[in-house]
Amino acid sequence: MGRSLNLLVTLDSNYLKPLRVMLFSLFFNNPNERFDIYLMHSRIKPDELSDLEQFISQQGHRLIVIKVGEADFQAAPVVKHYTKEMYYRLLAFKYLPATLERILYLDPDILVINSVKGLYDLDLSEWMFAAAYHDRLMVKELNKVRFLEYELEEYYNSGVLLMNLNRQRSLIDEQEIYNFVEKNKSRLILPDQDILNSLYAKEIRKLDEIEFNYDTRFYKYFRFLSKGKINMDYVMRHTVILHFCGKKKPWHKNYSGEFHGLYKHYEKLAFEDSVPVNVLE
Amino acid sequence: MGRSLNLLVTLDSNYLKPLRVMLFSLFFNNPNERFDIYLMHSRIKPDELSDLEQFISQQGHRLIVIKVGEADFQAAPVVKHYTKEMYYRLLAFKYLPATLERILYLDPDILVINSVKGLYDLDLSEWMFAAAYHDRLMVKELNKVRFLEYELEEYYNSGVLLMNLNRQRSLIDEQEIYNFVEKNKSRLILPDQDILNSLYAKEIRKLDEIEFNYDTRFYKYFRFLSKGKINMDYVMRHTVILHFCGKKKPWHKNYSGEFHGLYKHYEKLAFEDSVPVNVLE
Repeated sequence: MGRSLNLLVTLDSNYLKPLRVMLFSLFFNNPNERFDIYLMHSRIKPDELSDLEQFISQQGHRLIVIKVGEADFQAAPVVKHYTKEMYYRLLAFKYLPATLERILYLDPDILVINSVKGLYDLDLSEWMFAAAYHDRLMVKELNKVRFLEYELEEYYNSGVLLMNLNRQRSLIDEQEIYNFVEKNKSRLILPDQDILNSLYAKEIRKLDEIEFNYDTRFYKYFRFLSKGKINMDYVMRHTVILHFCGKKKPWHKNYSGEFHGLYKHYEKLAFEDSVPVNVLE
Repeated sequence: MGRSLNLLVTLDSNYLKPLRVMLFSLFFNNPNERFDIYLMHSRIKPDELSDLEQFISQQGHRLIVIKVGEADFQAAPVVKHYTKEMYYRLLAFKYLPATLERILYLDPDILVINSVKGLYDLDLSEWMFAAAYHDRLMVKELNKVRFLEYELEEYYNSGVLLMNLNRQRSLIDEQEIYNFVEKNKSRLILPDQDILNSLYAKEIRKLDEIEFNYDTRFYKYFRFLSKGKINMDYVMRHTVILHFCGKKKPWHKNYSGEFHGLYKHYEKLAFEDSVPVNVLE
């Protein structure tokens, strides 16, 4: 048995169900990989964790739980309704084993529908992160207005983040993050994403969003802009990560969208007593 | 190893690709079943057949090819642009092994997304067929107008047909079918379906269309009529057979619909060199 791929997730109990769907899709479409899933959390209950552990190990993978305690993130300022969990993905390097060199962070509102190997193995020697730049003009303009004092050339989505942990260990200054948040409190909309873009934009290797962070709200927009090339066939063959961005989620009752059926089918598969995907060895 | 389930398909080369997608979805969502796939055809090429055979046997199932020759169906009248293949599913009992007692016919424009066991094992002792009655008022009225001389109480879709072969052997009269077609030539729209409904309506056990022959064009209609109960979650958990009825097919370029992503994902899985689904024994 060869290497394991490291995956980072940070969430609370509300996202455990989508997390399982995301993980199932990841395992199913990467049948020859073994994953070590690092879960950073502060208030998921023991029985919920043991359910998750059982699911992950049944599928042939490993769960490593990192419980964040009261003493952690004491100096971190809190913004609006966001909790301190917003810092987890950016400061995870402090809590992960020192031997880890890279890890892939994924939001739970994701389906992984093809192999993540190409993404995981990207050269990051000169970057702390790899992330996808969401290229909607509107978003771009909006953010330019919001951060006048920062020169934002691009706006990266923080839902898919490949991390160079060694480089983070030597370059990320926790206090700098807190100072930035303190200073911009009133303007932060998506705090972790705003931090990433404001402080580390030059440390981000750009990912193709169609391949690695496909915003499911924009199916028709992508297809139109590409003159029909990026149609459903293309997406199913080339897109690795479908990201259900925005407030409407595919597990909500009145959701609708091109990927609704696919999501709910994976949800069903993830929660039935199914044959584990990894059966070769 | 226990019994095999018998499946009947009748098609030409144009439908080989959708057939493989349909079969993959069937195998994938019925991992504990073995299938004997009876393919009745007249002009599929040997290399196409051997591709299909390889796919099916790789997945742990069996293909039995029934080649229809020049001498067969000589007495059968031809209608409009329809070929004699329109008779295959109704007269398959003549060509299938005499030992077979039941078989499930499926159109190739189908995804099977849950277990077919419940359907396959339905009691058919007093019926020749089980089929779903498509309950759209419009269709009903249309057909009433078309067949004034026949009393059609219901209109069954012939795309999913469970067959009691013994009862067919004793009750179906080939010549009666040909006479009916000859007499109604000008009025037949979907010939095999019209025959089924006109000659054998009383021999059909009614299937729930939501469960066993879900017309994907009517997602919003079904959801509305059921006051939201038959939503995407319900469909993914309860529907066994998604039927992509109508002229627009999910493998066409400009198709759109709620199940497009799901279909194209299965299509990709069916054509990649994937791990066979059936790995338990």
